[in-house]
Amino acid sequence: MENFVYSVPTRIYFGKGQIQNLGTAVREWGGRALLVYGGGSIKKTGLYDTVMRLLKESGVAVTELSGVEPNPKITSVREGVRLCRENGVDVVVPVGGGSTIDCAKVVAAGACYGGDAWDLVIHPEKIGKVLPVVAVLTLAATGTEMNGNAVISDRSKNDKFGTFSQNMKPKASILDPEYTFSVSRKQTAAGTADIMSHIFEAYFNNVPGAFTQSRIAEALLKTCIHYGPVALEQPENYEARANLMWVSSLAINGLIGCGAPVGWTVHPMEHELSAFYDITHGVGLAILTPHWMKYVLNENTVGKFVEYGVNVWGIDAGLDRFEIANRAIAETAAFFKKLGIPATLREVGIGGENLEVMARKSVACMGNGFVPLRAEDVLAIFRAAL
Amino acid sequence: MENFVYSVPTRIYFGKGQIQNLGTAVREWGGRALLVYGGGSIKKTGLYDTVMRLLKESGVAVTELSGVEPNPKITSVREGVRLCRENGVDVVVPVGGGSTIDCAKVVAAGACYGGDAWDLVIHPEKIGKVLPVVAVLTLAATGTEMNGNAVISDRSKNDKFGTFSQNMKPKASILDPEYTFSVSRKQTAAGTADIMSHIFEAYFNNVPGAFTQSRIAEALLKTCIHYGPVALEQPENYEARANLMWVSSLAINGLIGCGAPVGWTVHPMEHELSAFYDITHGVGLAILTPHWMKYVLNENTVGKFVEYGVNVWGIDAGLDRFEIANRAIAETAAFFKKLGIPATLREVGIGGENLEVMARKSVACMGNGFVPLRAEDVLAIFRAAL
Repeated sequence: MENFVYSVPTRIYFGKGQIQNLGTAVREWGGRALLVYGGGSIKKTGLYDTVMRLLKESGVAVTELSGVEPNPKITSVREGVRLCRENGVDVVVPVGGGSTIDCAKVVAAGACYGGDAWDLVIHPEKIGKVLPVVAVLTLAATGTEMNGNAVISDRSKNDKFGTFSQNMKPKASILDPEYTFSVSRKQTAAGTADIMSHIFEAYFNNVPGAFTQSRIAEALLKTCIHYGPVALEQPENYEARANLMWVSSLAINGLIGCGAPVGWTVHPMEHELSAFYDITHGVGLAILTPHWMKYVLNENTVGKFVEYGVNVWGIDAGLDRFEIANRAIAETAAFFKKLGIPATLREVGIGGENLEVMARKSVACMGNGFVPLRAEDVLAIFRAAL
Repeated sequence: MENFVYSVPTRIYFGKGQIQNLGTAVREWGGRALLVYGGGSIKKTGLYDTVMRLLKESGVAVTELSGVEPNPKITSVREGVRLCRENGVDVVVPVGGGSTIDCAKVVAAGACYGGDAWDLVIHPEKIGKVLPVVAVLTLAATGTEMNGNAVISDRSKNDKFGTFSQNMKPKASILDPEYTFSVSRKQTAAGTADIMSHIFEAYFNNVPGAFTQSRIAEALLKTCIHYGPVALEQPENYEARANLMWVSSLAINGLIGCGAPVGWTVHPMEHELSAFYDITHGVGLAILTPHWMKYVLNENTVGKFVEYGVNVWGIDAGLDRFEIANRAIAETAAFFKKLGIPATLREVGIGGENLEVMARKSVACMGNGFVPLRAEDVLAIFRAAL
């Protein structure tokens, strides 16, 4: 196990009706809020009205940034920064899924930064002071509600980068599983794949002795495997939605990555797909993951795949090692198929035209992962996934 | 899953040499520290000198409270409160195991309270402001380094109570597994039993849908079962010490108890044993646990024991339910025996003389546990454990 610093200051209000704490949680940080949301689904569900009423009752003045898009754009961030400055905003309140919260976090950082907000995306070390963020989550997927990460795109350059700051961790997040009842089958499936990919990125590592972390990662994977299909079939099953929501936060809040730093391999690959084609992030991850697994399976890595197969999929530990590993990979692909996620890039409109450039760009953003990849390795994985 | 609020603001510095962060972590809170420690083992190991040097280098003035005993006494707390007031202490720095840190936390609360510190032990709601605590942990057991709990005894009345405040959570804790290399076989075994008991108290619950929490609890139990015996045989095995240390914190920092409130059954029983006989807490827990399990196993509870047996001990899920449950309980008892822990109360000097009064006092401190117990139930468990 490697040395680590673990610090998760976000206060989580979890469960039915926890929105009642919004006013207090926001008021703690000031009286002028920037409300950030997406395409207006929160207006259909009535959540917008609830939030506005609660903020008003707490004496909070609200400025709005609406229309934040999936794969949030730097243009939205810049608009948010402008609104913060013009209105002397004290606290940023995103209400939505990962894209909305990611956008809000970089807005909060950008409001305290003298230059252009894109600097903070490509140079995380430039993030200093950040306005407090109090988030209301409506989609279980990215885990942004409990960490310092954000991913922002610049479509003008087909760029999509992740940034991070300890200071961007939300001060509080409200997680009411009932808000995810209305999430579509497709988004529920993609969210589950996203959560699982976060866990895989941490779980597949070469660090000796990160036993606790691996066992917890398996616990989280088993929860996704158990409840993902339930949420698809019964969208208003509270326990399924609650478990997926809580796992989404735990998968990427530092818990399973501490002591065994996360290499980030499949995420940078997928970031190129969604930067170039604007596809759903979780779908891209689900398509790539089994192909990545097959590509990196070898004599050195088979042990970790055996752990995965036996502990997560319950495959007989007495079988041959590669047999277990290959079965585990097949189970993974079959699970994503069961969730109704396309299995190939062509099905989501991606052809061979940009594979080389995407491969080159992705390796520039990779950590020193489970199996370090070069551009030609990524290209081979992309081609296998076509 | 029930509603919950999750907030763990403690910053953990984990690993070899993390003590180098002590000066900065303390200085953040002020220039006058109360150093709290126990019987002087930190002087033998050299840790005392290191701590004093680092605090001095950071310009921190140090007052000392030494001699904090196992099962820390209210008399030590009162002395610490006096020292805080006389010396205008800004920050309390315990260096030691659970007893030292528990004592320091109540000292930190007592220093900001007008009345006698015992009030804060029996009336947790009276705890208001608390001086910041920065802890250095030298024993993996109680988890106090990452939560708001403390247990204090008043030997003059054979009283031992747990108290809690969100404000008593340490601001930072330094966890260097190497500090536990010198922990004796007996204390290593007792610490492992204490960790496992914290997990059991949370794991055995009746809350439907707390799936994530149960799977994580099993992950932590498997870590204890894997590494407890390794640490006993190879006291300087870093991975064993590191995993036990990190699990000790995760077992009782709110992670596995959120959404499925912890009932606390075996701990209050054991508190009476150590209040009356001053035995090692973890030893008392290990003696009582299998007897408690046998006592509460019935048609309503067998399902949870099946989960435990299959997921933690790998018992064949195809067996009869009660067969699985009884095997799981037998495995639990055998594991504690393997750790060298006595199996009966008589072996630790406890006879039948105080069983009734201890049973009566313990039920007064029990939550609404997995199976609610009356004094006669506790008495039956005590008698079975004789």
